[in-house]
Amino acid sequence: MSPTRPDPAAVSRPLAITLGDPAGIGPEIVARALVLRPDLVPSVLLVGHAASLVRACRDLPGMPAIERVEAPRASGQPGQVALWDIGAGVEPPALGQVSALAGRLAADAVVTAATAALQGRVRAVVTAPLHKEALAAAGVSHPGHTELLQALAAEHAGVPVTHVPVRMMLSAPGLATVLVSIHVSLRAAIDAVTPDNVLQTLEIAHAHFRRAGVVAPRLAVAGLNPHAGEGGLFGREEIEQIAPAVAAARAAGIDASGPHPPDTVFMRARQGAFDAVIAMYHDQGLIPVKLLGVEHGVNTTLGLPFVRTSPDHGTAFDIAGRGLASADSLLAAIDAALATSRP
Amino acid sequence: MSPTRPDPAAVSRPLAITLGDPAGIGPEIVARALVLRPDLVPSVLLVGHAASLVRACRDLPGMPAIERVEAPRASGQPGQVALWDIGAGVEPPALGQVSALAGRLAADAVVTAATAALQGRVRAVVTAPLHKEALAAAGVSHPGHTELLQALAAEHAGVPVTHVPVRMMLSAPGLATVLVSIHVSLRAAIDAVTPDNVLQTLEIAHAHFRRAGVVAPRLAVAGLNPHAGEGGLFGREEIEQIAPAVAAARAAGIDASGPHPPDTVFMRARQGAFDAVIAMYHDQGLIPVKLLGVEHGVNTTLGLPFVRTSPDHGTAFDIAGRGLASADSLLAAIDAALATSRP
Repeated sequence: MSPTRPDPAAVSRPLAITLGDPAGIGPEIVARALVLRPDLVPSVLLVGHAASLVRACRDLPGMPAIERVEAPRASGQPGQVALWDIGAGVEPPALGQVSALAGRLAADAVVTAATAALQGRVRAVVTAPLHKEALAAAGVSHPGHTELLQALAAEHAGVPVTHVPVRMMLSAPGLATVLVSIHVSLRAAIDAVTPDNVLQTLEIAHAHFRRAGVVAPRLAVAGLNPHAGEGGLFGREEIEQIAPAVAAARAAGIDASGPHPPDTVFMRARQGAFDAVIAMYHDQGLIPVKLLGVEHGVNTTLGLPFVRTSPDHGTAFDIAGRGLASADSLLAAIDAALATSRP
Repeated sequence: MSPTRPDPAAVSRPLAITLGDPAGIGPEIVARALVLRPDLVPSVLLVGHAASLVRACRDLPGMPAIERVEAPRASGQPGQVALWDIGAGVEPPALGQVSALAGRLAADAVVTAATAALQGRVRAVVTAPLHKEALAAAGVSHPGHTELLQALAAEHAGVPVTHVPVRMMLSAPGLATVLVSIHVSLRAAIDAVTPDNVLQTLEIAHAHFRRAGVVAPRLAVAGLNPHAGEGGLFGREEIEQIAPAVAAARAAGIDASGPHPPDTVFMRARQGAFDAVIAMYHDQGLIPVKLLGVEHGVNTTLGLPFVRTSPDHGTAFDIAGRGLASADSLLAAIDAALATSRP
């Protein structure tokens, strides 16, 4: 076999990349990613609205030709990229505007890609950004990707959605954090710091890193209070909620440590002391990761039966269609998905 | 006048540097700072236990000779450094151990330096680290520098301590954050996010940056909840507590903005959008600053009638006397004090 031809085994299960809301920057950053990284072309399957992708790459030199497919497979043609069209014959929605049509096209692409992943026919799913208002306008009851994917996974398994607990992991070069809770008030987030939730987060994170090839993932659990409560002086959640979860995880063979003082645990993780930090609330984890560079941030949903990553930014309606959006975070998400899934 | 001789005006009010707990790394990092930066020697006044400083610099080549003084002045001798001895005739306490003697020597140095500052006889005070247990063992009722300095300032002014509200500012290169509260549980910190406390923090921070020469300091106020509450969806503190304080500050001519989403406001400040971020709780502000490099972190107490800075680390009893401690954070604290005070 010629060494320049892709190994058929390597493309047997493609990486699915959804185009996101077609009114946003999704289609253009996907196109730009393929121009910047032609090595990806033979092994990906784009899923989304074809006419919007064509609009996005009209003036983009180096964009590979598109092969329309209607099954989860990569292109069989050298130098061409496979595209599973969602919404054939539909005109592209206006750029930079919330619309039910755009929300519907975006959601349908996610459902198509996720279904293929649940059937084991794509190796992983990378999602370009959705717009939550457009999703709602399209009548989708789930507020975002995570909830939609969780519901699809539960339906596929025939279990209630509560049986598919998921967690958000956000990572930047050198730092990964897994969040106990996300979009709730800080008061509600404190209430969610329970032994069960912390332990479940540790188990989900452990399973993810194991699947990604880390033999004994070193998971640092952050405290909730300043100085991790300083022995109960500034709050007792470390003693009553977090430490029991760490002990239970260790008893189950997970290399968990902590609770650590929150103000230095991220710094230590970045220096290499841990593979990930379990953060007790949204901003505890997101502030350090975003500070290290939102342009290389990757959002990974842990707990699904397949690998799903996304860039760490939104639809950026304000710059959509202007050729300004960077594909860096999307490329980081693609690389993360490839590194943690098998063809 | 020879250009190599220090300008007498520039040394008319020295910078006071306390040696900290003599059982910790304080004396050795002060000595190392002077060796690394001989330009500082003519304009500083060391305050602390002389015998402990002598022990710390016994094997340190390049250490300037010491001139004992008993008044707040720099050395009059070229190449010598002034030292105001606290505890003449007392043997140096054992390194790396908590002791009442060490706590007493450390506290007395702070009282001496602060009194000189309150009398306007030193330009600013830089404090090497204390050990809280040693302080307590010495019978000092204040848990740390901040509370001790606040009490001394109130006593000097003849007002209750509540009339001298102070705030902690922590800064690293490119990022400064001022905290609404510090050593309380996260639940108590949420309760402390009131219009009065946020406005007072803004006023104190504004006054500091004005005194430091920033004509119109741009102060970003972080939200408390994820996405700054997303319009009340994830908590109402932004609407009910923080926004009124921002409005009141703006009405008073302070360039305050926010509440901003916490996960991106520090990133934006570091990119130059703001002079400082007002953080709603300890870890919100300290996580990003420590991530940027604890070795260059500076702690500044705002609200005192004089400038006071300190390095962003503790006494490090585990490495005291072994020549391993870095003077970087202390030097950053010295430079910050010099940049924001007048000789």
